[in-house]
Amino acid sequence: MTNPTAAMLVIGDEILSGRTRDANMYHLAGELTKVGIDLKEVRVVSDDAPAIVAAVKALSSAYGTVFTSGGIGPTHDDITADCIAAAFDDHIDVRDDARALLQAHYDRNGQELNDARLRMARIPDSATLIDNPVSIAPGFTVQNVHVMAGVPSVFQAMVATILPTLSGGAPLLSETLRIDRGEGDIAGPLANLAASYADLSVGSYPFQKDGRYGSNIVIRGQDAARVSAALTDLKAAFPT
Amino acid sequence: MTNPTAAMLVIGDEILSGRTRDANMYHLAGELTKVGIDLKEVRVVSDDAPAIVAAVKALSSAYGTVFTSGGIGPTHDDITADCIAAAFDDHIDVRDDARALLQAHYDRNGQELNDARLRMARIPDSATLIDNPVSIAPGFTVQNVHVMAGVPSVFQAMVATILPTLSGGAPLLSETLRIDRGEGDIAGPLANLAASYADLSVGSYPFQKDGRYGSNIVIRGQDAARVSAALTDLKAAFPT
Repeated sequence: MTNPTAAMLVIGDEILSGRTRDANMYHLAGELTKVGIDLKEVRVVSDDAPAIVAAVKALSSAYGTVFTSGGIGPTHDDITADCIAAAFDDHIDVRDDARALLQAHYDRNGQELNDARLRMARIPDSATLIDNPVSIAPGFTVQNVHVMAGVPSVFQAMVATILPTLSGGAPLLSETLRIDRGEGDIAGPLANLAASYADLSVGSYPFQKDGRYGSNIVIRGQDAARVSAALTDLKAAFPT
Repeated sequence: MTNPTAAMLVIGDEILSGRTRDANMYHLAGELTKVGIDLKEVRVVSDDAPAIVAAVKALSSAYGTVFTSGGIGPTHDDITADCIAAAFDDHIDVRDDARALLQAHYDRNGQELNDARLRMARIPDSATLIDNPVSIAPGFTVQNVHVMAGVPSVFQAMVATILPTLSGGAPLLSETLRIDRGEGDIAGPLANLAASYADLSVGSYPFQKDGRYGSNIVIRGQDAARVSAALTDLKAAFPT
């Protein structure tokens, strides 16, 4: 059985300039693995309309589901919503349902729904809104693309809203064995194991610590009995 | 003046499965910014040959320089070198210069240069080697693509070797002002500032902390006087 596929598009100069270390990709990758959706590709692009439009089109046609992060706030560099509309040839303007959410929120807080904030109600015509329990301004979904905020607390809340609506496959199970030997010593037997368990994924993630080499061997698959059998064989091949 | 452009390709299931949080992208982004090379795009793909080949081709033709990370070790899931050769229609086999490096290293350590380790001497014919002071097995460069290890200590050492060989532009200078008000309150004046300083990049990176909203405004550019003038105007627009 093949799991559904997904991709992520991270929009924002702050990652590409090295100012900020990514948190949203790491969060989404972990959540998708839990529900049996295979994250196949991530792209990070800058706040540049042609780059965003091209990436949305490419990922949307290549994978089952696409998640975007960033660029839907009120400031001049927030251009994601307009780019999504352009990618899907959709019309975009301030939408009444999004405006009503924002109006109620700012009325409650005694703040003005000014032109800048109203930009956050710009939503493509065909989109459905994604609830934002943290700061109200909604994300939205157009076709297979879920458009979410870049602020990690808001991104995570939106992911939690979206994930239960998606059909995952069997959750990907994994077992890890740490082997305190260099990859060059273990690669031969490991390749044999991988060949014997072609239905599983067998990955080797080397590390170096205090001048010594080792590797974490990760066995992944959907069938618990097979994963367990492979782990047993792996332990037998590399007794401690 | 436009800075040279770069892209990065991260190869490895461990990032996409959420097992590992990226470190190499964050490191490279910061180093490139320091030397005035604009990192324009990052892609993360799995240990899958067609995906790697397609990404290498796309990034290599679109950007001035490409850096890859991961997949050049001795285990069965290390397929990057063969994919690079395929992307550039180059021949690949164990190369004498790389083999000699490995042979000397393993002789010194009393270890065997077995078939698995010899895989790390598979280098495309047209490549030049990248020194690996940490664990010897070299990276390599084909055309505008620099192929480096995924283990962060090795990746960083290879980046340190490569960067002085590249021609950067003027280093990108940046000034950051933290404003403890929501983006909706500052977006209007900020857009005016960005319009007045069209030669600079003015980014707003919102945060939420202890239930309060704020944003870090980052002004970036190559002309110190202009960046400084914009910062002065920004502070005047948002007195503390």
